[in-house]
Amino acid sequence: MSGILDSICEANDIKKVEKKNYAKLAKEIRRFLVDHVSETGGHLASNLGMVELTMALHLTMEFPKDKLIFDVGHQSYVHKILTGRKEQFSTLRKYKGLSGFPRREESPCDAFNTGHSSTSISAALGYARARDLKKEDYKVCAVIGDGALTGGMAYEALNNAAELETNLVIVLNDNKMSIAGNVGGMANYLGKLRTSSRYMGLKDGVEEALKHVAGGERLIKRIRRSKDSIKRLFIPGVFFEDMGLTYIGPINGHNIDQLVTALTTALRAEEPVIVHVLTKKGKGYVPAERDPSKFHGVGRFDKRTGITEEETEMTYTQAFSEALMEQAEKREELVAITAAMPQGTGLSEFAEAYPERFFDVGIAEEHAVTFAAGLAAGGLHPVFAVYSTFLQRAYDQLLHDVALPCLPVTFMVDRAGLVGSDGATHQGIFDYSFLSTVPGLCIMAPKNVWELKEMFCFAVRQEVPTAIRYPKGQAYEGLSEWKEEIGMGRAEILYRESGIALLAIGSMVETAVSVREKLKEQGISVSLVNMRFLKPLDGGLLKELAEDHGCYVTLEENTASGGLGQAVGSFLHKEGLPTALLSFSLPDAFIEHGSTQELKEAYGLSADRIAETVLKDRRVQLLCQAAEEG
Amino acid sequence: MSGILDSICEANDIKKVEKKNYAKLAKEIRRFLVDHVSETGGHLASNLGMVELTMALHLTMEFPKDKLIFDVGHQSYVHKILTGRKEQFSTLRKYKGLSGFPRREESPCDAFNTGHSSTSISAALGYARARDLKKEDYKVCAVIGDGALTGGMAYEALNNAAELETNLVIVLNDNKMSIAGNVGGMANYLGKLRTSSRYMGLKDGVEEALKHVAGGERLIKRIRRSKDSIKRLFIPGVFFEDMGLTYIGPINGHNIDQLVTALTTALRAEEPVIVHVLTKKGKGYVPAERDPSKFHGVGRFDKRTGITEEETEMTYTQAFSEALMEQAEKREELVAITAAMPQGTGLSEFAEAYPERFFDVGIAEEHAVTFAAGLAAGGLHPVFAVYSTFLQRAYDQLLHDVALPCLPVTFMVDRAGLVGSDGATHQGIFDYSFLSTVPGLCIMAPKNVWELKEMFCFAVRQEVPTAIRYPKGQAYEGLSEWKEEIGMGRAEILYRESGIALLAIGSMVETAVSVREKLKEQGISVSLVNMRFLKPLDGGLLKELAEDHGCYVTLEENTASGGLGQAVGSFLHKEGLPTALLSFSLPDAFIEHGSTQELKEAYGLSADRIAETVLKDRRVQLLCQAAEEG
Repeated sequence: MSGILDSICEANDIKKVEKKNYAKLAKEIRRFLVDHVSETGGHLASNLGMVELTMALHLTMEFPKDKLIFDVGHQSYVHKILTGRKEQFSTLRKYKGLSGFPRREESPCDAFNTGHSSTSISAALGYARARDLKKEDYKVCAVIGDGALTGGMAYEALNNAAELETNLVIVLNDNKMSIAGNVGGMANYLGKLRTSSRYMGLKDGVEEALKHVAGGERLIKRIRRSKDSIKRLFIPGVFFEDMGLTYIGPINGHNIDQLVTALTTALRAEEPVIVHVLTKKGKGYVPAERDPSKFHGVGRFDKRTGITEEETEMTYTQAFSEALMEQAEKREELVAITAAMPQGTGLSEFAEAYPERFFDVGIAEEHAVTFAAGLAAGGLHPVFAVYSTFLQRAYDQLLHDVALPCLPVTFMVDRAGLVGSDGATHQGIFDYSFLSTVPGLCIMAPKNVWELKEMFCFAVRQEVPTAIRYPKGQAYEGLSEWKEEIGMGRAEILYRESGIALLAIGSMVETAVSVREKLKEQGISVSLVNMRFLKPLDGGLLKELAEDHGCYVTLEENTASGGLGQAVGSFLHKEGLPTALLSFSLPDAFIEHGSTQELKEAYGLSADRIAETVLKDRRVQLLCQAAEEG
Repeated sequence: MSGILDSICEANDIKKVEKKNYAKLAKEIRRFLVDHVSETGGHLASNLGMVELTMALHLTMEFPKDKLIFDVGHQSYVHKILTGRKEQFSTLRKYKGLSGFPRREESPCDAFNTGHSSTSISAALGYARARDLKKEDYKVCAVIGDGALTGGMAYEALNNAAELETNLVIVLNDNKMSIAGNVGGMANYLGKLRTSSRYMGLKDGVEEALKHVAGGERLIKRIRRSKDSIKRLFIPGVFFEDMGLTYIGPINGHNIDQLVTALTTALRAEEPVIVHVLTKKGKGYVPAERDPSKFHGVGRFDKRTGITEEETEMTYTQAFSEALMEQAEKREELVAITAAMPQGTGLSEFAEAYPERFFDVGIAEEHAVTFAAGLAAGGLHPVFAVYSTFLQRAYDQLLHDVALPCLPVTFMVDRAGLVGSDGATHQGIFDYSFLSTVPGLCIMAPKNVWELKEMFCFAVRQEVPTAIRYPKGQAYEGLSEWKEEIGMGRAEILYRESGIALLAIGSMVETAVSVREKLKEQGISVSLVNMRFLKPLDGGLLKELAEDHGCYVTLEENTASGGLGQAVGSFLHKEGLPTALLSFSLPDAFIEHGSTQELKEAYGLSADRIAETVLKDRRVQLLCQAAEEG
């Protein structure tokens, strides 16, 4: 490690660095990022693009007094490096290690927890209002990407921020893309701002010309009097200005001098200011500059070549992608929607083959779902592929626009269950819970790759809304001998014995097989059911099995409140069945980052831990005793 | 009833009306609206403002072939009148009667069900895309108010619509207010558009002047070449234009000729077009023009005077308002937020007394919640007063921005449970379900007015997020003799007997008293518990009562999936308690409009129906038998 970065051990240390060394420091930070992220994996391209901007923010703000809020937050690595956390970078995104996102619990310099998109302006405005009311004195700055600006919340917040009469700085970090390329009207608008400087010369030309004609002076005066009209004539960012926000930009986001000047002005203003900064994703590391999408979120890679470790595993995302391609050929009415994640959700191939049937709506899950409802009302069958954690955004739209009129939309709920290193903001552990509250929604989860494909074929044939949830990472290919046809609300019996029945859904079927083996080793008779449907629940089977099973054990990768355990429990009560019930799920809590294996172990969802708990249960022990005696 | 309206019996009949009779028809429609709504109650002011606009839409579109989507939808009465439903207006918003919102089930002329704000552009875009893919030929038009345009979804949809290369018409119905006055930057922007016509003359003046100077022609050419720059010079709606949407307006929304001309042009365009229409809420009925807020949603009134029937009942909203005023004086850190509903949520008095501590963020629940999180992070205690059905919009923000960092925000969840005549889109029957999935959120519901106030005082003293849900309409003032202090997660025992324990929460405590009486009449011993907290659940009490109660009966005004019944059931399983459980709730379904009493009766939640069901239950009968024998 070289010199300048070594001298930065805590917040505000950067202010002691000599100006002439800024470029050197930027270079060192980039090397540090590449060195560490190539080892730990993480978000690289966006952080490389933020080096000078973050440095400038640290040169003009004071931490932890001032409040800096990163939208989404995975671009906060440089901020972490500059606020005393660089020694922890080898633990980045690991269990009990440094989070990949800003966390108030981690440092007083992290003003607000982020993870999901488009929240930063709302939070920053909250801070600004609190500061003013409490007559405190600190600066508040939100840093939001142009991608996050497609999210409606950001616009709601801008709309609201326009009424503020004190300082608030919104840095628009414009790298012309979110994760994939950016889309839509706001992108067009920003594109025009970027190039607006070439029209700026018009102003002088027009004024000069007008001076020399009869009535020209009067016209100029008239233009000058109407302040708004003048803006409309000559100033970029007129939309922001018309809303009531001051616009500064566009600024070169890799020129620290320019950045410091702009930020200093902005931070001194007595009003909300938008600073439009142009940055390059992946800046300074050639492989990331060439393929910023690949280096957005990346696993370990060879830092010399940029070659990532080969991933040969089949994922559920890929399996879905294949199933979609097969069905798309047969079914012209199939269309697919993503909210700015064509690659992550497995839609790239479909997008290439059927561009007219593919819709990337931007980071806009709310709109995506109601747009899907409109497509369905118009006679198509839309498939919305989305991460579980982001579907939370569209709960109301799912209820109100899809389920209420009962429109045929298929929700492919990816990254459901534990997602690992992204941590608490991204775990997909609430979808069973919130989806199961939606009347008439059919909810499925597959035991393996084959079943995911079958479920998808089943879903696109339905006249009702359906959701299929499946986890991140390697897909399970075992249990391939069980291939019972999918039927609405019908579970699949894998082993039919008596005594205890394991009722597992989705990713937990694989685990249940091991649990069953462990219980069998103890001489216990164990049935195993692949539930397949959370809703409608296979009540017929639950009644049938109750006849010769004294205990049901439900297994799901979801939070405790809502989901399979509660659905089975309710059913037992409603039917007055005496079967005991043991439910395994994640706790009613937020789950931190770590590998999914570590987290399952920690929260009692590994096969060992489950078997252990089942064997310790008093009711199970009574059952076993009775079986031995009988 | 007079002549012209009589001739309109089904869709498209308006096209047979002679042009000279348009004004007469408009007058008749207004009279019809006032006559009917004064009898049935309903949304009046917005429909009065939409008369000419709806007529013009019906003169330029063809139903049901073309698709007209009303944002929010309560302004669709005129559309209903013009599409063969005028005879049903006496049943408006009544059980089994005409819905107050567009419903596909009601008429093929209703293209999309609406109710919540800001969904129309998304749905319309879905229709337009489906039309193009299926190579069909129909027009699609969304009608959205300036209030609904503050919702982020509308902006997400505009952003996405800008990419469409075929026709889509978005009518911006600008009445300078949503329900209350409009707020924020978009309102500023629209205000500028409204007055922009006075700058329109500039264009010709400048061009003319330039022609007469040296180099002037070159300048004009340069301006002409840069299409965008010209727009920026001379055309209002430049933001929409820069996004890629064609802007027409502003148009006088009460001039049918102008409207027909603008709509005809817009509907013929090969691109998405925004038609900016200025209307007056309440137009043509003096009391509604004078006080459009009062006549937004209104009960029965005297049509001659506009005087509404006196409401002397104390509502929970008023009780909250009083409690807020009391606490606000003592606690400087209390601030209050509404999403465009200061009156409806009981914040008007607070807003007047503490304008600097009051925030109306527009129809923007997502932003409201994250803004609250920011305020809380900044050291204040925000109270977000919101209707249950609209809080669905902010499920993700509640999880991700408030609960995850565990910030002290109080959610006052008004209109929870059945809301009656607004129907399926507005029932507040999901909040127990989705709120109970949120880790660490404390969820309460009061039995009566006193308890609402106590719970509020309790909530604002907490360091964790809390939610209090309470119903619409008259607040219950009975059971005033029970005033046990509120303690975190502690239920209140009203009657302690043995046998059956009624576990009721919120509005159902009142009902439970009657249920108990009916059961007592049958000689059954019945305890009654006011649960108070859905979360944390009073597990200690549930364990204690299990000792001498064979059956728990839960009572809640919420959907079956999630909520109290499931929470108690899960607890019984987890603890291995043998107590039987009977759960009363609304079904896992959407509930139509009707009076809350009719709906409770229909869905088995009236005291009579509950008592009847309890008495019929086999387990209860066994219990009674055992009690008699023992």
